[in-house]
Amino acid sequence: MKILVVNAGSSSMKYQLIDMETETVIAKGLCERIGISGNISHKTADGRALSYDTPFPDHAAAFREMIKVLTEGEGKVINSMDEIAAVGHRGVHGGEKFASSLLITDEILDTVDELSSLAPLHNPPGLVAMKASQQVFGKDKPMVAVFDTAFHQTMPEKAYIYPIPYEYYEEYRFRRYGFHGTSHRFVSARLAEIKGRNDLKIVTCHLGNGSSIAAVDAGRSVDTSMGLTPLEGIIMGTRSGTIDPSLLRAMAQQKELSLDEVTTVLNKQSGLLGVSGVSNDQRDLHAAAAGGNKRAELAIDIQCYQIKKYIGSYAAAMGGLDAVIFTGGIGENDEVVRRKVCEDMQFFGIDFDAAKNDAGSRKESRITADGSRVEVWVIPTNEELLIARDTRDIVSKLK
Amino acid sequence: MKILVVNAGSSSMKYQLIDMETETVIAKGLCERIGISGNISHKTADGRALSYDTPFPDHAAAFREMIKVLTEGEGKVINSMDEIAAVGHRGVHGGEKFASSLLITDEILDTVDELSSLAPLHNPPGLVAMKASQQVFGKDKPMVAVFDTAFHQTMPEKAYIYPIPYEYYEEYRFRRYGFHGTSHRFVSARLAEIKGRNDLKIVTCHLGNGSSIAAVDAGRSVDTSMGLTPLEGIIMGTRSGTIDPSLLRAMAQQKELSLDEVTTVLNKQSGLLGVSGVSNDQRDLHAAAAGGNKRAELAIDIQCYQIKKYIGSYAAAMGGLDAVIFTGGIGENDEVVRRKVCEDMQFFGIDFDAAKNDAGSRKESRITADGSRVEVWVIPTNEELLIARDTRDIVSKLK
Repeated sequence: MKILVVNAGSSSMKYQLIDMETETVIAKGLCERIGISGNISHKTADGRALSYDTPFPDHAAAFREMIKVLTEGEGKVINSMDEIAAVGHRGVHGGEKFASSLLITDEILDTVDELSSLAPLHNPPGLVAMKASQQVFGKDKPMVAVFDTAFHQTMPEKAYIYPIPYEYYEEYRFRRYGFHGTSHRFVSARLAEIKGRNDLKIVTCHLGNGSSIAAVDAGRSVDTSMGLTPLEGIIMGTRSGTIDPSLLRAMAQQKELSLDEVTTVLNKQSGLLGVSGVSNDQRDLHAAAAGGNKRAELAIDIQCYQIKKYIGSYAAAMGGLDAVIFTGGIGENDEVVRRKVCEDMQFFGIDFDAAKNDAGSRKESRITADGSRVEVWVIPTNEELLIARDTRDIVSKLK
Repeated sequence: MKILVVNAGSSSMKYQLIDMETETVIAKGLCERIGISGNISHKTADGRALSYDTPFPDHAAAFREMIKVLTEGEGKVINSMDEIAAVGHRGVHGGEKFASSLLITDEILDTVDELSSLAPLHNPPGLVAMKASQQVFGKDKPMVAVFDTAFHQTMPEKAYIYPIPYEYYEEYRFRRYGFHGTSHRFVSARLAEIKGRNDLKIVTCHLGNGSSIAAVDAGRSVDTSMGLTPLEGIIMGTRSGTIDPSLLRAMAQQKELSLDEVTTVLNKQSGLLGVSGVSNDQRDLHAAAAGGNKRAELAIDIQCYQIKKYIGSYAAAMGGLDAVIFTGGIGENDEVVRRKVCEDMQFFGIDFDAAKNDAGSRKESRITADGSRVEVWVIPTNEELLIARDTRDIVSKLK
């Protein structure tokens, strides 16, 4: 069975065609500048690569080009789109409606549309892509939506209710949802598989330009650092994460900014970029810190300190800790961050192995010493594969 | 040596006259409705009590009445105000200027005035009271200011710098300051004294209508839950504590509120009151929860869960944990909260003793089992005594 996985933004769309017999990527690519101009870049597993401009007036046009490049010419990997058994879509905000992946129906699309009030930036492009793919593939092609929030729907009330007037929850569903659920689920399930145990208490650290941390107890998310939106939690590339809620008014007053403008500052000009004044890119920060830039060093220190505190916090939330997992661009590749987080954590039973850590990037690897009571792992995430698996599971039951 | 300790609000002023030989309170009282009408209530250590209305046009008038009641008539405990060796004032926000208690001079008063931009609600009444007491006692009477923020000035940068554009720190000194420092210092120093050790890693939980938690490592505050203002941190009586910073815009949009109004909602209508819809008073919540009110129960659950997570977080911050201290109105009196926080914390080395806890309120007591690796204590706070001690120490050096 071959499954096409799609991750749509407002002007871009990533795709992977995955062979589920081997769980390998047959081809993958990126449609960019949708609604502006248009460019597609495409790579096949056997090493062919192409990239060219072509007009993408809308997401449907991008889907048509994607099918063309998969089935014809230099990038061809299948004979026709009939070989694609189903399409798996990444959905961002499933609200309280979607606690698991599900088959896309007209009713589901209406609900995703309703949830746009909770995720005005992220849900509309996802919805547009789902509708465009129905238009191009036809309504008979099974399609599945896998939501970033779904994995965290197992959080208890005490973790998701905000201490604000309760009517905001009752009337507008303002609560903590969490994101990156597909990634937290993928890596925690992978470690359960490695260890052959389904009772593990795991803190999963998905660290990228957006970062979130989750407490996963026996396969269920019981807490996570992002909230109603991806702004909450730890310091990120350009996002502040959690701050004193009074800061918004203080900032607005000093700089004569509106609430919208302050919120934009917190999303776009804060985080590692805001503290360092250098960059939101972790590699740039390390280079600057190595060159003596104190604010770049401080930004990394804040990041590692906050991650460390979340690990302690979630060990308390779960009443124990068996493992910590690092994943995402920074989690998988940044030895320095992992070291600063895991050092001086003997109290928690983490016997960190610096040599294993230095050799442990970009692959599945344990970075604690043999016999460490709590194990720390690097596990590369693969959200597309999990979307493909969920799609396969749901589609298989249709028959 | 007798020291008068004063804690001023905008329309009220609490006072205690303390005998420093025995560290006991000779008399204490409260001036209320300053600038509105005026009432003084006064109690002496030997059991005399009086309360009457008298006009308080300003804080100076309240000071004059305070001296009158201390030196004349039914409430008399001293012959004249000359017996008061010095006055200790509670200051709220010492910013980055004041890392310890200090003798009040005109320069200090100017600085407190400048810091009002950081604490517009709290610093102006403190300043008014300091000036009024100079006016009434004369400038020759030594006066000391003890700031709520001072104890937390030992926090490292990684704990106090917000992940927002750095210029907000450089230009306006927006950073985390923390509050309740006098209380965190008092109880952590007391435990160090009890244990005869000055290397303890302690999490101090000051839980009252305002609540904050601190990580105290070897007598120094290294982190605390309140920030630029007392709104940050855990859920409080009417304050939200930390939330997704995006919530302010979301709330403002749905209810057509200004940023000022949303900030007021977060300070005055949120927290335990907002979640429960019942009360900001812990006793009311317990009563309602016992009567089956699910939201009252949820409010307490959120509170205990957040405290528990802070304990874990600060154990990670300090790289260890020797003790947890509960203090403040809720910390000293609420067995249920202490139990819910400390249960299921064996991973942290807390061997909680439910019977000791049930018997441990309102007095200094250990509530963990003998031999517990981490000890949990109830230690009644005494901010006035610490202010008096600091005042004595500073005044003694003047001679």
